[in-house]
Amino acid sequence: MIKVAILGYGTVGSGVYNVLHSNGRLVTDRAGQEIEVKYVLDLRDFPGDPVEKVLTHEFEDIINDDEVKIVVEVMGGLHPAFEFTKRCLEEGKNVCTSNKELVAENGLELMSIARENDVNYFFEASCGGGIPIIRALNDCLTADDIDEITGILNGTTNFILTEMTENPGVSFSKVLKQAQENGYAERDPSADIDAHDPARKIAILSSIVFGSSVDYKDIYTEGIRQITAEDIRYASTLGYAVKLLAEAKRTEDGVRAYVAPFLVEPSHPLYAINGVMNAVYVHGNMLGDAVFTGAGAGSLPTASAVVADVIDAARHDGKRAYCGWKHDEKLVLASNDSVKRKYLVRIYTEDEGKANKVFSPDGFLDTISVGELEDEIAFITPELSEEEFSDKVKSFGNVISRIRFY
Amino acid sequence: MIKVAILGYGTVGSGVYNVLHSNGRLVTDRAGQEIEVKYVLDLRDFPGDPVEKVLTHEFEDIINDDEVKIVVEVMGGLHPAFEFTKRCLEEGKNVCTSNKELVAENGLELMSIARENDVNYFFEASCGGGIPIIRALNDCLTADDIDEITGILNGTTNFILTEMTENPGVSFSKVLKQAQENGYAERDPSADIDAHDPARKIAILSSIVFGSSVDYKDIYTEGIRQITAEDIRYASTLGYAVKLLAEAKRTEDGVRAYVAPFLVEPSHPLYAINGVMNAVYVHGNMLGDAVFTGAGAGSLPTASAVVADVIDAARHDGKRAYCGWKHDEKLVLASNDSVKRKYLVRIYTEDEGKANKVFSPDGFLDTISVGELEDEIAFITPELSEEEFSDKVKSFGNVISRIRFY
Repeated sequence: MIKVAILGYGTVGSGVYNVLHSNGRLVTDRAGQEIEVKYVLDLRDFPGDPVEKVLTHEFEDIINDDEVKIVVEVMGGLHPAFEFTKRCLEEGKNVCTSNKELVAENGLELMSIARENDVNYFFEASCGGGIPIIRALNDCLTADDIDEITGILNGTTNFILTEMTENPGVSFSKVLKQAQENGYAERDPSADIDAHDPARKIAILSSIVFGSSVDYKDIYTEGIRQITAEDIRYASTLGYAVKLLAEAKRTEDGVRAYVAPFLVEPSHPLYAINGVMNAVYVHGNMLGDAVFTGAGAGSLPTASAVVADVIDAARHDGKRAYCGWKHDEKLVLASNDSVKRKYLVRIYTEDEGKANKVFSPDGFLDTISVGELEDEIAFITPELSEEEFSDKVKSFGNVISRIRFY
Repeated sequence: MIKVAILGYGTVGSGVYNVLHSNGRLVTDRAGQEIEVKYVLDLRDFPGDPVEKVLTHEFEDIINDDEVKIVVEVMGGLHPAFEFTKRCLEEGKNVCTSNKELVAENGLELMSIARENDVNYFFEASCGGGIPIIRALNDCLTADDIDEITGILNGTTNFILTEMTENPGVSFSKVLKQAQENGYAERDPSADIDAHDPARKIAILSSIVFGSSVDYKDIYTEGIRQITAEDIRYASTLGYAVKLLAEAKRTEDGVRAYVAPFLVEPSHPLYAINGVMNAVYVHGNMLGDAVFTGAGAGSLPTASAVVADVIDAARHDGKRAYCGWKHDEKLVLASNDSVKRKYLVRIYTEDEGKANKVFSPDGFLDTISVGELEDEIAFITPELSEEEFSDKVKSFGNVISRIRFY
């Protein structure tokens, strides 16, 4: 029997409590021992809820109880989650979390405290919800040198882009409003649509893959706020999908990372990942291509990942589990300036001559097949480096929109 | 330092040797200790090959060497692989294998011997090549009650069906011949195209998911030999793909399993798995849907899975790892007789009246959109149980072909 405390009885916390109870027999079998929830910490009361009998308002009850070997931190936010996690690890308690903000911001420090205290800090649910991508990297694809990891790591933005594709002409703001009404987007949607959330997740995943801490603030990050119905119409006409990809890749110059909307071709394994689903593409030097797909969010899928961490913590009671994110130094990302891509560029019809001079496109897209778009034309650039493209855009001046081809 | 012997220096064996050497530094890091290949067993000589210095023709060299803690069995076939594996396990050596025939045929017995001798019998590479599906089930999706697992588990047949779809009109036998020339199909292709291979794999996977041994010989198994260019043309016209699916599912009546070609709709996660790729769909009661995709065969992807087993064996040195396939009894599968589906049925035009009477279809498919098919028409049945459908086919007599809708 191993005793657990859950910090926070919100969406994920109640899911964790639910999974541990509903699948209790299976969980015991797989953990090799019974797992009992001794405390649930929350500031609120839950009269009539079965959690009532283990509810506490005092973190000190938990930290001072030597019987508690595993703490589930599902409070979200940086404070007091950071302080609580730190104290638990220092007291020799394993911590399992879904808190991607905290892992992305303080993971390096918390991992190092866990190492010093011979306990585990697990965070499977911080990336890709229910997709077991972190355990896949640490425990499954262990024979491979992984040189690329690229994912659709945010369900909200993937839902919005999918809706805009399936309902041609509908605007970004209209779909966002609908997503907010359905509970697929937050009232303050910035973390999702400005792509800070997938940036944090690819920072965590690439820290595991490449061994040293990647700071999400160093990653080039562009959201989907500027994507219009017209951009989507062009993409569909070309047979491409617009996807918000989060990518980290080892190159000759070092590790490069990107979070941005891309035009993705049908043969790419992430092309068909639609709606709120998440997926992670991994390339290994022996394995080749592998893709892991599943629900990227939601109470129960996220709780499923947290409970898998709890089971692994029970299996490793007293022992450290392997984690690829093992070096204390920070990984300095290589510049993206020399990365070459093609771009889809929309401009005003009157600028056609200038566009020919500046961008030398092979020609302009057939606007008839795209449908009538007044006063504008579009073209695909030759392969250009980020730097070259950015210089050309500056000298050109009046671009309506541009999207990278993946 | 832990010492390994490899039984068999064929396609997979040489891949394993290659992965252990090329990724040696990483493998050491992830295993927590150096892994040294002390022996490679093969009847042949390999003059000039680096394997020469560790080559032996005598299994007794390996079984009598107490330093060898991990044996990689990649010989294939049942004998002497079974006897060698049994003796290794009895001598307290861990065994890692890619041999699906052996695991499907004697897995139950070998697992039980491993348990008695406190060692591990790992077989990640036996299902889905490089896809880490077995470890995902045993070590990642541990919080979930898995109630369904369905896969495209054979690359040869998926390649053939994909080619037939992408090149309308080309015959099964022509594509098979091409696959044989490319090395995607064996000279004796029966294990693949008659679907014994995916039947073995789904038997192994469902033994892990449902806990007790599923005998592949109990699984309804239908291959793709009878699929014609016309069947594919109908499928494409309807917007479906023909996929050879291997499925095991818990129902009210017990666990049911199928291996057969199905018409799969575009929204299904296995619809877009093409060519030699494999994929496994899993449904968990908390997680919902998850899909794992990757190379289902090939020397290096398979070796990648075997070496991941070797690393796990090193991590568990002296300890048993969890495996869901834990019960000694055999799982008796529920009958498929009452499973209801729709069917696509092709018949001769002259039998139209009889078809209306026997099958009561809503109507006949528009043959113009399918293209000219002389003397025949086709229809989709209402939902019928396997038993009802089979009775109707018997009483009707002269069906050209029929395929199940998934």
